[in-house]
Amino acid sequence: MARYTIGLDYGTNSVRAILVNVANGKEVASATWTYPHGKEGILLSDDPNLARQHPADYLKGAETTIKRALGVAKRSNQTFKPDQVIGLGVDTTGSTPLPVDRKGQPLAFDSRFEKDLDAMAWLWKDHTSIDEAIEITDLARKMRPQYLAKCGGIYSSEWFFSKILHCLRTNPKVFSAAYTWVEAADWIPAVLTGTEAPEDLKICVCAAGHKAMFNAEWGGYPDEKFLTRLDPKLGDLHTRLKTRAQAIDKPVGGLCKTWASKTGLREGIPVAAGVFDAHAGAVGSGIQPGMLVKILGTSTCDMMIVPADQRLADIPGLCGIVKGSIVPGFVGLEAGQSAVGDIFNWYVDYICPGGKRTGSHTALTNQAEKLAPGASGLLALDWNNGNRTVLVDPRLSGLLIGQSLHTTPAEIYRALIEATAFGALTIINRLEQYHVKVDRIVTGGGIAEKNPMVMQIYADVTNRPMMLSRSSQTCALGAAVAAAVCAGEYPDIPAAQEAMTGLKSKVYDPNPAAVEVYGKLYKLYRQLHDAFGTTAWKGSCFNVMKDLLAIRAEARGGAT
Amino acid sequence: MARYTIGLDYGTNSVRAILVNVANGKEVASATWTYPHGKEGILLSDDPNLARQHPADYLKGAETTIKRALGVAKRSNQTFKPDQVIGLGVDTTGSTPLPVDRKGQPLAFDSRFEKDLDAMAWLWKDHTSIDEAIEITDLARKMRPQYLAKCGGIYSSEWFFSKILHCLRTNPKVFSAAYTWVEAADWIPAVLTGTEAPEDLKICVCAAGHKAMFNAEWGGYPDEKFLTRLDPKLGDLHTRLKTRAQAIDKPVGGLCKTWASKTGLREGIPVAAGVFDAHAGAVGSGIQPGMLVKILGTSTCDMMIVPADQRLADIPGLCGIVKGSIVPGFVGLEAGQSAVGDIFNWYVDYICPGGKRTGSHTALTNQAEKLAPGASGLLALDWNNGNRTVLVDPRLSGLLIGQSLHTTPAEIYRALIEATAFGALTIINRLEQYHVKVDRIVTGGGIAEKNPMVMQIYADVTNRPMMLSRSSQTCALGAAVAAAVCAGEYPDIPAAQEAMTGLKSKVYDPNPAAVEVYGKLYKLYRQLHDAFGTTAWKGSCFNVMKDLLAIRAEARGGAT
Repeated sequence: MARYTIGLDYGTNSVRAILVNVANGKEVASATWTYPHGKEGILLSDDPNLARQHPADYLKGAETTIKRALGVAKRSNQTFKPDQVIGLGVDTTGSTPLPVDRKGQPLAFDSRFEKDLDAMAWLWKDHTSIDEAIEITDLARKMRPQYLAKCGGIYSSEWFFSKILHCLRTNPKVFSAAYTWVEAADWIPAVLTGTEAPEDLKICVCAAGHKAMFNAEWGGYPDEKFLTRLDPKLGDLHTRLKTRAQAIDKPVGGLCKTWASKTGLREGIPVAAGVFDAHAGAVGSGIQPGMLVKILGTSTCDMMIVPADQRLADIPGLCGIVKGSIVPGFVGLEAGQSAVGDIFNWYVDYICPGGKRTGSHTALTNQAEKLAPGASGLLALDWNNGNRTVLVDPRLSGLLIGQSLHTTPAEIYRALIEATAFGALTIINRLEQYHVKVDRIVTGGGIAEKNPMVMQIYADVTNRPMMLSRSSQTCALGAAVAAAVCAGEYPDIPAAQEAMTGLKSKVYDPNPAAVEVYGKLYKLYRQLHDAFGTTAWKGSCFNVMKDLLAIRAEARGGAT
Repeated sequence: MARYTIGLDYGTNSVRAILVNVANGKEVASATWTYPHGKEGILLSDDPNLARQHPADYLKGAETTIKRALGVAKRSNQTFKPDQVIGLGVDTTGSTPLPVDRKGQPLAFDSRFEKDLDAMAWLWKDHTSIDEAIEITDLARKMRPQYLAKCGGIYSSEWFFSKILHCLRTNPKVFSAAYTWVEAADWIPAVLTGTEAPEDLKICVCAAGHKAMFNAEWGGYPDEKFLTRLDPKLGDLHTRLKTRAQAIDKPVGGLCKTWASKTGLREGIPVAAGVFDAHAGAVGSGIQPGMLVKILGTSTCDMMIVPADQRLADIPGLCGIVKGSIVPGFVGLEAGQSAVGDIFNWYVDYICPGGKRTGSHTALTNQAEKLAPGASGLLALDWNNGNRTVLVDPRLSGLLIGQSLHTTPAEIYRALIEATAFGALTIINRLEQYHVKVDRIVTGGGIAEKNPMVMQIYADVTNRPMMLSRSSQTCALGAAVAAAVCAGEYPDIPAAQEAMTGLKSKVYDPNPAAVEVYGKLYKLYRQLHDAFGTTAWKGSCFNVMKDLLAIRAEARGGAT
């Protein structure tokens, strides 16, 4: 009788459950559910930087999608029984922390705070905490440089402590009412296993290591003295934070009775430690040394693993270097581009070149794929949403150069795609500069599957074969892989990956003629990159984008 | 009984005749006629750089428009008689030279050459002669630097000797058959007065001075030795070129019998020396010291005059510094921007942001005028067609910086308009740096009349009042002003301007708050201008646009 695990994948707007055969990774059923709160699951306010989620959506979403997926499985296979499901894995967006009470209940569930946006889950893309991120970075630079060395040299406004400190500063009522703060990636598995009470809670190394400066080397989270220097109340919180974190190959517990009865699953089946969606996607793509897994969506997350016993320097500009964060026994490296699909969507949805009919992604792609590399004379920087890796600078913006009086919409579209590929190559070059070899790139997601031109441009620009994950739900699959290991089906993650993950047969190989042209264009890209993004050379234009943002803020009455 | 002059204005696609009351400059009748040859009057070939005109269109155009204008005048005023027309002035595009035979007849009229495009008039915007322009510039730099000092340091591919040398090199048959070459601005008045035979021909200082390095100081055109070094056959031509040139306040002759009978005008009425359209436009706008006249169209022509007895340095980057070229007794200064309206049209017609309905000039203007200066965070360079003044570099291209994921079409539209205003300010600053004070700007043409937002942006960016010419046909009016002086109605051009030209009452005054923001943005514009357009500082990006063009040429198989 076949055995299955469930991968529960919490995205920005919806949650998905997939039911996977542990023998071969085949996805036999799935169900998706869009969060009902706010705008497509996101609670907004007048502040354009604010983005929150209601944790009730997480629970209702787990119940709904698991039940539906089981229903689908039953309908397609009359002999299927929920008892055949032997484990559950969870991945979520992050850093998405939420304040909880002494029992691990979200403050959002407390009637006193049910309308308070600060009592909700602070979604990964919430940018309210920019000032606090600068404050944390500045203090760490002076006091604990080792904290920054593992996260690219800059602590982000999207991350755990920036958000908590912002709440402390701007909404002390919520901060005081919170016993502690928990990442959604930790809280959901805890609820499913009835271990959400802070004393029982188990946390994952992925979230803590990549977003909260957690490292076993210095005993866990940043030390009390450091947090106290930021704010004494943050220092107090330190005693209520966990000191150990675990990887995805170990369960945080067994499915509790309540959730077994809610979902119809067997009580006690192991629930794996939570993991961030992109990291789960790396697992579901079969990540191994030498393979860069690129989750190509509105932004990208680029992941590599390096054997834990290999010497590895702190690589400047990377968002995280964390032992065990992706695959236990390996150091997980995370990099990323702040906007990729978002730039293409901006161009199509905001600029609407040529109008709706001729300006769709499909129409522009059809024209753009006929263009030879370099033939437009255009070059762009992919910084419309700042630069995450390797510059780690949100105060950068887009740039397009080379326009004539005959430049067409499709030429600009292609230049924007090329710009994101140049950005991808810049990350690869940084990794290789620090002896992390990148032989091939595996990607997945809508753009990769829908747009062969994008894949070919990436192959030609990076001069590396581009491959596609076999699964189109690598994140959920990665969670299911973790569940299979927790259930004892495989001795470790690599063994489970070997059996459960794979690639599509189509490979996009670099075209030598295009590689040569892009080599020349990349030199110019780097020149612009360094001129506008660094102070590396005298006479750089490093100030230009920042000054424009300052002028803009003033013109808009001080808003950034 | 009222007296009138006719201004005959030869544009790129059509010719216009206006009938003007010499007492007050009032336009009482006009007629326009589009050239029938080629595409809207332009003869084209496979070579995208080629643009020629058939000189037959010039003659048929004079006859047709003069007769029609007289007809209009008669219909609106029964007492009007053609004998009341006391003079005729002509302005044309330029440099637009044509090869003629020993009698001054165009080779285009010779059956042996009637299909040969090189036998036609070489229209101002013909760019076939880029290599020859470089050759002439290089030789002059070594041998006769004084020639270049009066035309911005670079001899253009659009100008007289570049075109003749290109014909010599590529079509020796046409070159040998030509007795000499004549500017359209000189040839048309010569035909009207029956003085087209080379020995009778009179040439204007405007065309010769601005486009053919003619200067009384060195005895006229470049000397024989210089031309011989370019090519011995060009040296031979020197003996058949004129040695004196005249200004527009003197006639080249009286209307000949043939043309009197063709048009119905009185035989013998004075025909003024020809002049380039923009220069006539400056006269028709009432140009005087301190006033910059900007002909604002697809590109711009910026003109100033300085009393001839005032000390004036050679101003680097200006297209021409010629005594008597605009108003006799003054030095005429010409500068310009390679593309202004053309950039807005490119954006609307090629990029079609938001589609036809929401992406029209009107719709974009309606949205853009609601934006506060600086609020978009965008900045552009106005170099989509290279830079004429002050960089004199066709190998430059457009640049847009500051895009976010929310940048709108109207924000980009406004940024492009602002970029052209920054380009205008750069010219003004160069003039003032050399002690040519610019107090106010007078402009005319479609954009200026149709788009108050553009006028206000120019006022705010340049921090100078922007005014509009009263006439919407300043070029034709300027030609009519010259004719009035030639007919003895006024002692000189300034006196005729005083009576016949004027400004509209509406003045666009700078708004101090906007001036302040644009002051900050202009600093950044200059930084980009110098980074991409000069080698003034170490680490400039001077190579980027040029390298992109080289890569583009290679990608397109060598075409530039």
